[in-house]
Amino acid sequence: MHKSKLAGFIIDCQTSDLHGAARFWSDALGMPVEELPGAEGDRYVRLKDPADQLHIEVQSVKHPSRVHLDIETDNIEAEVERLQALGATVVEYVHTWCVMQAPTGQRFCVVDKASARFEQEANSWQGRAG
Amino acid sequence: MHKSKLAGFIIDCQTSDLHGAARFWSDALGMPVEELPGAEGDRYVRLKDPADQLHIEVQSVKHPSRVHLDIETDNIEAEVERLQALGATVVEYVHTWCVMQAPTGQRFCVVDKASARFEQEANSWQGRAG
Repeated sequence: MHKSKLAGFIIDCQTSDLHGAARFWSDALGMPVEELPGAEGDRYVRLKDPADQLHIEVQSVKHPSRVHLDIETDNIEAEVERLQALGATVVEYVHTWCVMQAPTGQRFCVVDKASARFEQEANSWQGRAG
Repeated sequence: MHKSKLAGFIIDCQTSDLHGAARFWSDALGMPVEELPGAEGDRYVRLKDPADQLHIEVQSVKHPSRVHLDIETDNIEAEVERLQALGATVVEYVHTWCVMQAPTGQRFCVVDKASARFEQEANSWQGRAG
């Protein structure tokens, strides 16, 4: 058995001005910017969800701008397999996460669990060994 | 003064099989499908957020698939004006909402407030008249 849930979303911005992009989205959504330390801070800025439910980041990317969803899990391999059985495909593995494509065309990521209420709120899925 | 907050997101799917699309996203996110009544149900299926924080819908669209954010407000005109001052542009008005484009390229919608905790959780913005 493994678990997963919606982690939040990433606002992918095709820009070299990450901080300008983050400022717009921070002001638009009314969510304070939280700078990330070190090298991560060069590509990602976190926006703090006042309801403390969602992990939201603004990311500078090379591909066209979009919004993508993140699914967090305690078992990336099992979750990728579950999503493949639903019709999604693996695009690539990057660092610790997996980029997938939905049968409806959107890309999304499967990432390690990180939210405070993961254990209480995530859905439980029975594997094939069930 | 007016108020706004993130309402949630819409999963736009370029498909004629709205219910198949909704089934994938319902299973992927572990969120039950909630059919919408009448004509609205031909284009939209709601996914119920177990945390009861987000308004999430799967929509069948003609344009390429994507995910877009919705901002809810008690004053669409004032909110559109506020977002324009931040650099967003109006794409078009549709029924009761306004489609806008962020300076970073993503489209999003400004919609009438609908969430249960809007009054407590929305951000307050001072208009030009203060």
